[in-house]
Amino acid sequence: MRETIDLLICPRWIIPVEPAGVTLENHALAVRHGKILAILPVDEARARYQPVSLVELAQHVLIPGLVNLHAHAAMNLFRGTADDLPLMRWLQEAIWPAESRHVCAEFVRDGTLLAAAEMLRGGVTTCNDMYFHPEAAAQAFASAGMRAVVGMVLMEFPTPWASDADDYLRKGLAARDQWRNHPCISFSIAPHAPYTVSDSSFQRARALADELELPIHVHIHETANEIRDSLAEHGMRPLARLAKLGVLGENLIGVHAVHLDHTDIELLAHHGCSVAHCPSSNMKLGSGMAPVTELLAAGIRVGLGSDGAASNNRIDIFQEMRHAALLAKVRTLDAAALPAHAALHMATLGGAQALGLDAQIGSLLPGKCADLCAVDLGSILTQPCFDPVSHLVYVAGREYVTHVWINGEPRVDKGLTLLQISDKQLLRIVSVWHTRFAN
Amino acid sequence: MRETIDLLICPRWIIPVEPAGVTLENHALAVRHGKILAILPVDEARARYQPVSLVELAQHVLIPGLVNLHAHAAMNLFRGTADDLPLMRWLQEAIWPAESRHVCAEFVRDGTLLAAAEMLRGGVTTCNDMYFHPEAAAQAFASAGMRAVVGMVLMEFPTPWASDADDYLRKGLAARDQWRNHPCISFSIAPHAPYTVSDSSFQRARALADELELPIHVHIHETANEIRDSLAEHGMRPLARLAKLGVLGENLIGVHAVHLDHTDIELLAHHGCSVAHCPSSNMKLGSGMAPVTELLAAGIRVGLGSDGAASNNRIDIFQEMRHAALLAKVRTLDAAALPAHAALHMATLGGAQALGLDAQIGSLLPGKCADLCAVDLGSILTQPCFDPVSHLVYVAGREYVTHVWINGEPRVDKGLTLLQISDKQLLRIVSVWHTRFAN
Repeated sequence: MRETIDLLICPRWIIPVEPAGVTLENHALAVRHGKILAILPVDEARARYQPVSLVELAQHVLIPGLVNLHAHAAMNLFRGTADDLPLMRWLQEAIWPAESRHVCAEFVRDGTLLAAAEMLRGGVTTCNDMYFHPEAAAQAFASAGMRAVVGMVLMEFPTPWASDADDYLRKGLAARDQWRNHPCISFSIAPHAPYTVSDSSFQRARALADELELPIHVHIHETANEIRDSLAEHGMRPLARLAKLGVLGENLIGVHAVHLDHTDIELLAHHGCSVAHCPSSNMKLGSGMAPVTELLAAGIRVGLGSDGAASNNRIDIFQEMRHAALLAKVRTLDAAALPAHAALHMATLGGAQALGLDAQIGSLLPGKCADLCAVDLGSILTQPCFDPVSHLVYVAGREYVTHVWINGEPRVDKGLTLLQISDKQLLRIVSVWHTRFAN
Repeated sequence: MRETIDLLICPRWIIPVEPAGVTLENHALAVRHGKILAILPVDEARARYQPVSLVELAQHVLIPGLVNLHAHAAMNLFRGTADDLPLMRWLQEAIWPAESRHVCAEFVRDGTLLAAAEMLRGGVTTCNDMYFHPEAAAQAFASAGMRAVVGMVLMEFPTPWASDADDYLRKGLAARDQWRNHPCISFSIAPHAPYTVSDSSFQRARALADELELPIHVHIHETANEIRDSLAEHGMRPLARLAKLGVLGENLIGVHAVHLDHTDIELLAHHGCSVAHCPSSNMKLGSGMAPVTELLAAGIRVGLGSDGAASNNRIDIFQEMRHAALLAKVRTLDAAALPAHAALHMATLGGAQALGLDAQIGSLLPGKCADLCAVDLGSILTQPCFDPVSHLVYVAGREYVTHVWINGEPRVDKGLTLLQISDKQLLRIVSVWHTRFAN
């Protein structure tokens, strides 16, 4: 008699990411109680299992759900408000003023919901977020049924959300308490950046991260100016400062990490830090090209981040895979740099490892959560296909994502997002905010 | 009484590209006899015209059809065969051997048809192509109803198509004779590259181009090696050699133009040459970053090219717009470099000017051909939208193209390509070639 399971997926190809470099054909993936039960030859699977739901995907590739290792999800409501400006002018003249006028809990909830819908539609199942009102962000991610690590943001200067570092921390921790024990929502401590956070706040962040076993999520070495200002103010580069303060460690995710010298890379490697590489944002803001191949060679875990929709302007980890691979090649003038498998690894297991979630997600191993993404490669725009991994990075895109599951539950089905809120309702909400900004 | 016209399009926005920087709202575009008759306020248009076909696009932006200024369309059948290799190894170990085994007239016809379908679906209405068997390429473009400038390729070494420079030219000219007077198909003379074409062949190319009033389409300064080898063999850089041979001129389109010093840029500007910028291919092959902002500052016309599907691997001018803008910013470390309007200009009027076709296409001016592309910006993945030009470059993509017209005739309608051949038939043809390569 066949064993009853919840879901059996029979795609053309399965790319488990672990073991590395493997592409399986004629295999099926079995899901029970939200976990991956087995990956096995499709004939064997059909003989062994009686699935409640059978999904046949004759021209699709099945991969782990993608991990967005750096987002400001709520900023989706600012998509494309301020293009073609460098980071500090972009922050000071466009983003910070807009935020101080408009950001509130409703803004964060609505913007995060819009971003969650965009991410799910594009195969992203986990998001490492950083923004104000983490309680509202958590609510949006939870209602979208998406896995998220919500940052308790910390900075010195006052915003409509919090008045000073104490206030940020108090409010962040209250949000965390409120969402404790949720199966998909967890928290990080998120000191914004070396140029917005004091030494003592960084030390408190480290102490809290240790006590509560949280990741630290921080922008670091994004622009040449940041390094210059740190040398002027602190007499040392930002990473050296964080090392001296005892902030670096295995649970630290440094975002951007564009301007790194040999010593910086050694510091990151020595302390076991991870990096969230955001190639599109780094290009668009003219920040520079992160030395990703050197980071990987030094054994540093690297994942991919979209950054926020005001600097990217597309929350699309397929795009980040392609941009990571292309940018690494042109930076090193070596076409063999960051091949397709390495880009896919960064977008999945690399991100999961950085978050300390690799026992649960990031690859298709039995026992892990069934966070899955299916991509249709059967279109005339994606044929012929000699290697599905190459196609995932260099040819396809999120527009070919047809199915997404989180914990074995469908979130996208035949290209349609399954949210509590319809696209039409979501567009109406966006339009209200759009009108508000214009006035 | 209202004037009868063929087509009236009422989109949310019209971006005519000429005049520069303009975005029209509440306007309509009228088409008669395949030409743009007028762009005028929508109320006026409705009062004045009785259209045979009325297309209302409430959330769309209407732009000129895109120009792909450099393609090897037939190579779509080699899509993704040889990733992560530098140019000369890629050519010598992968592409040239595969071509010598497989390329024939049928290969070129089928591959070009696949590429034409991909380009049309992505809003590309004109393609500047270079490959073997131009007679077969012309046939494919004509059957797809696409505008094309077909290159009569010229090189010294023998291929299955031609034995030597004489033979290439004879066959190319025969193809041109065969397709003379076709309304959408014209020809260029296409000496492959400085490292594959002799001095005397370059001079014959120039003489023919002058006599027959054809563009010259040539790869130039793609890699650092190409410069080095030319210095060793000819004692000068490739562009200096072409200048000495009298090959440079207003009808010359130099493809790639990555490795340029100040003198090279002066030569291009002085002779009025154009450049086909191929950012994705240059990144993927690790060739380098073309100095596009300097080229534009020197008054050189720049268009965008996809290159062939074995080096890109996606024939998508929306992607090239985004990559051109992002790469220019990160190369110059200036977020203001190549703003969205400039990228759109390159993808439309810039390409048309390079081809000498700007009296017919490239912008939405009355009297020009009705080569048009409509893009839906109403999705939750593209909202909010503060500036449709920004969205075309940084947010949307070819997946949002819903309608394409060439000479006022629909080629894509509600996202479906209108070819004589169905997608299913096309996929069957691709699958036959795929099987052949695998054996």
